[in-house]
Amino acid sequence: MTDTGSLLAEVVGPEHVLTEGSVPAEYGHDESLTAVARAPAYVVRPATAAEVSGVVAVAAAQRIPVTARGSGTGLCGACVPHADGIVLSFERMDRVLEIDTANHVAVVQPGVTLAELDRQTASSGLCYPVRPGGQSASVGGTIATNAGGMHAVRHGVTRHHVLGVEAVLASGEIVRSGGKFVKTSTGYDLTQLLVGSEGTLALVTEAVLRLKPRAGHSATVLAPFATAGEISQAVPRLLAGGLDPLALEYVDMLTMAATTAERDLALGIPEQVRRTSLGYLVVVLEERSAERLEADVEGLGEQLLTLGAADVYVLPAAAARRLIEARERAFWAAKAAGADEVVDIVVPRASLPRLLAEADVIARDSGSVITGCGHAGDGNVHLAVFQPDEDLRDSVLRRLFRAGTALGGAISGEHGIGTAKKRYFLDLEDPAKVELMRRIKHAFDPDGILNPDVLFD
Amino acid sequence: MTDTGSLLAEVVGPEHVLTEGSVPAEYGHDESLTAVARAPAYVVRPATAAEVSGVVAVAAAQRIPVTARGSGTGLCGACVPHADGIVLSFERMDRVLEIDTANHVAVVQPGVTLAELDRQTASSGLCYPVRPGGQSASVGGTIATNAGGMHAVRHGVTRHHVLGVEAVLASGEIVRSGGKFVKTSTGYDLTQLLVGSEGTLALVTEAVLRLKPRAGHSATVLAPFATAGEISQAVPRLLAGGLDPLALEYVDMLTMAATTAERDLALGIPEQVRRTSLGYLVVVLEERSAERLEADVEGLGEQLLTLGAADVYVLPAAAARRLIEARERAFWAAKAAGADEVVDIVVPRASLPRLLAEADVIARDSGSVITGCGHAGDGNVHLAVFQPDEDLRDSVLRRLFRAGTALGGAISGEHGIGTAKKRYFLDLEDPAKVELMRRIKHAFDPDGILNPDVLFD
Repeated sequence: MTDTGSLLAEVVGPEHVLTEGSVPAEYGHDESLTAVARAPAYVVRPATAAEVSGVVAVAAAQRIPVTARGSGTGLCGACVPHADGIVLSFERMDRVLEIDTANHVAVVQPGVTLAELDRQTASSGLCYPVRPGGQSASVGGTIATNAGGMHAVRHGVTRHHVLGVEAVLASGEIVRSGGKFVKTSTGYDLTQLLVGSEGTLALVTEAVLRLKPRAGHSATVLAPFATAGEISQAVPRLLAGGLDPLALEYVDMLTMAATTAERDLALGIPEQVRRTSLGYLVVVLEERSAERLEADVEGLGEQLLTLGAADVYVLPAAAARRLIEARERAFWAAKAAGADEVVDIVVPRASLPRLLAEADVIARDSGSVITGCGHAGDGNVHLAVFQPDEDLRDSVLRRLFRAGTALGGAISGEHGIGTAKKRYFLDLEDPAKVELMRRIKHAFDPDGILNPDVLFD
Repeated sequence: MTDTGSLLAEVVGPEHVLTEGSVPAEYGHDESLTAVARAPAYVVRPATAAEVSGVVAVAAAQRIPVTARGSGTGLCGACVPHADGIVLSFERMDRVLEIDTANHVAVVQPGVTLAELDRQTASSGLCYPVRPGGQSASVGGTIATNAGGMHAVRHGVTRHHVLGVEAVLASGEIVRSGGKFVKTSTGYDLTQLLVGSEGTLALVTEAVLRLKPRAGHSATVLAPFATAGEISQAVPRLLAGGLDPLALEYVDMLTMAATTAERDLALGIPEQVRRTSLGYLVVVLEERSAERLEADVEGLGEQLLTLGAADVYVLPAAAARRLIEARERAFWAAKAAGADEVVDIVVPRASLPRLLAEADVIARDSGSVITGCGHAGDGNVHLAVFQPDEDLRDSVLRRLFRAGTALGGAISGEHGIGTAKKRYFLDLEDPAKVELMRRIKHAFDPDGILNPDVLFD
């Protein structure tokens, strides 16, 4: 073992250090379709914050890059390590430390998956309401990307649920920020700054997460519309009445076909309606009582028809569950169908039809196929781009991102920048802001050891 | 006029520069009970972001401190200027630029008051749900302190509603961050970093605020309890059922007496109940329909009695409004009663009784009177400290802040640190975190011209 390997082994124990040659391929990549995998020099698996601190201290002394890794379900290559670097895997720090029913929070280690957290909160009547596509994601990973998902229209995104963190700085120091409370005005909010920083500022070793009551009754309503524009106009009207849906999803015709085909889902929609509907609105409602839910579903149905829906389908529970699961698996459906890249541009939600129209033009111009589904309530669209030619795809992505930012949006709503979208980020973002972000990075990590290839060059 | 005065006059026009001798006293202070007022060398009143940028450029070239000022309703001296400095008043940038009903956002200038924003959103059926005590507060000021208030238990605090900002950096550069969308994962979230930064990182010249549907029906329920502990235990149970109250306030016996006396409020509570109740829980419910509200109120009443309330009073609308207004004016009631300082410690809400018990001990030990009311749903308590002796008061505050942080809380939940609580912040906060905050400050403002006396020395 090298010197560095020995030092790392002293910190975490030799059985928790993997070195070149013995590193399984999975540590070199995430689920990004385009980020190039890279094997790290070391994988270390610490069990405590003190060990994380020890690993960072070794890395800092030798200026070795450190890349934090949760479940590896990211979509933009943010956990692709440096070839000379250390992958710091949180796989052993995967426990729910506390479910605090008086304060409605969970205290967790970063390696715990959303699925496991959901399982462990179930008996308390509480839940962690953030639901990005994959329940196998680690909490640490969702904090790193400020993961969003389907429930954001009601509950907000990861940043709204992370009340506090314990984190290891690039110096090896362990700090705590925030805690079991929502309100704070005590200096700069370091917790919020770490959320979405993709492992470049500090390593989160513990998180205090806000929990919400689990609602007892839910219903899923599917409404086909002739155009995306109609869907977009329907959204603010549905929300203005105070309906507060749990999810409000847009699924385009092609994605619906792929989704239902992959899952062999019969939703009872007549062929004629399917042929004339360019898009679908999926609305999930949740209520405390069956009576209120029923009244809400009835009111929603009437409103959808008034707003131009071709029809309204209240799905049986099993079909609803499968549709939502299929919708969450849209990335995998796109991948299986041969998509070359998937992006998650966010725009003001009223501008979604313009973004989709723009995407149509870009697809036609470039001979690409671009299909989409998205979070209609949030203006966050997932576009699968089918364009095998790398240069052509580069220009397609560049045009899509430009279209999104020109509409007042941003490059990524929830996946992050990572390594895969860095060049677009650096090219399209205001240089004054990029410079400010570089200075923040430098304030946290003057030697640039924390995920140095992510966000910046 | 001095050279600096002339340069500032070139930027904003001579009629919008006030210089020494002609500066009204109000520009030297906010509503803090203890921060020492200081007249600035200049007051400038820009009308546009470009003028703000011009003012900052003049200040940067000459290293003159700049203190941003909204309505001056802050409680910790964060807008007390430097004696050689410039007060940059946003009084002329006080417009609601847009109410966007498709995206449910308002775009506003920083000088607009919450009252004016509420007035202008009324006809849209939407509202800005953040409600700190004073509706005369400017939006810019609420962003600077991450203002919270009574509705935080349902709607969260200012940071959860600021989706984007335009801001002038210490270099004079104008940047935009975020926009009309909730989800984003595109580099560090500068918007969130500016919220709560008390004018020390950049000057917000425009904000995109998230609006919510205005609920049609509301009710206010008052429940006397024998002890603070019972109230605290009742809170998570009320919330766990999914009731989602708009406000959940704790008012202690003395504050209730002062509050009702100041407003001459008869709430119909029998003398015998008043004498045996150490505290009151005030619950505000809001619903879309009168029927649902009625059912909720009934359920809440039953639950409160089960949880130990001595009785339950559903207040008539006028009395409810006056009680809430009186509660919001608690600071003024405390001031009128001769309070020497008011603090707003936040702790995990289940720890509120322990904090209050600790406050009792500290009061007894020091011969002080400490009364309190607070946001029971949020663990954020406002304690009025009656102790005229400055040294003794200093030790009382220090012990209170220590008690709060020892319980896992923070010095300030919503008022901020400013100049008044700086020494406690610098003494009690983890030095590693303070150092990190200093480095962030330096990243934004290397010459230290933005509110240099706030947060840090």
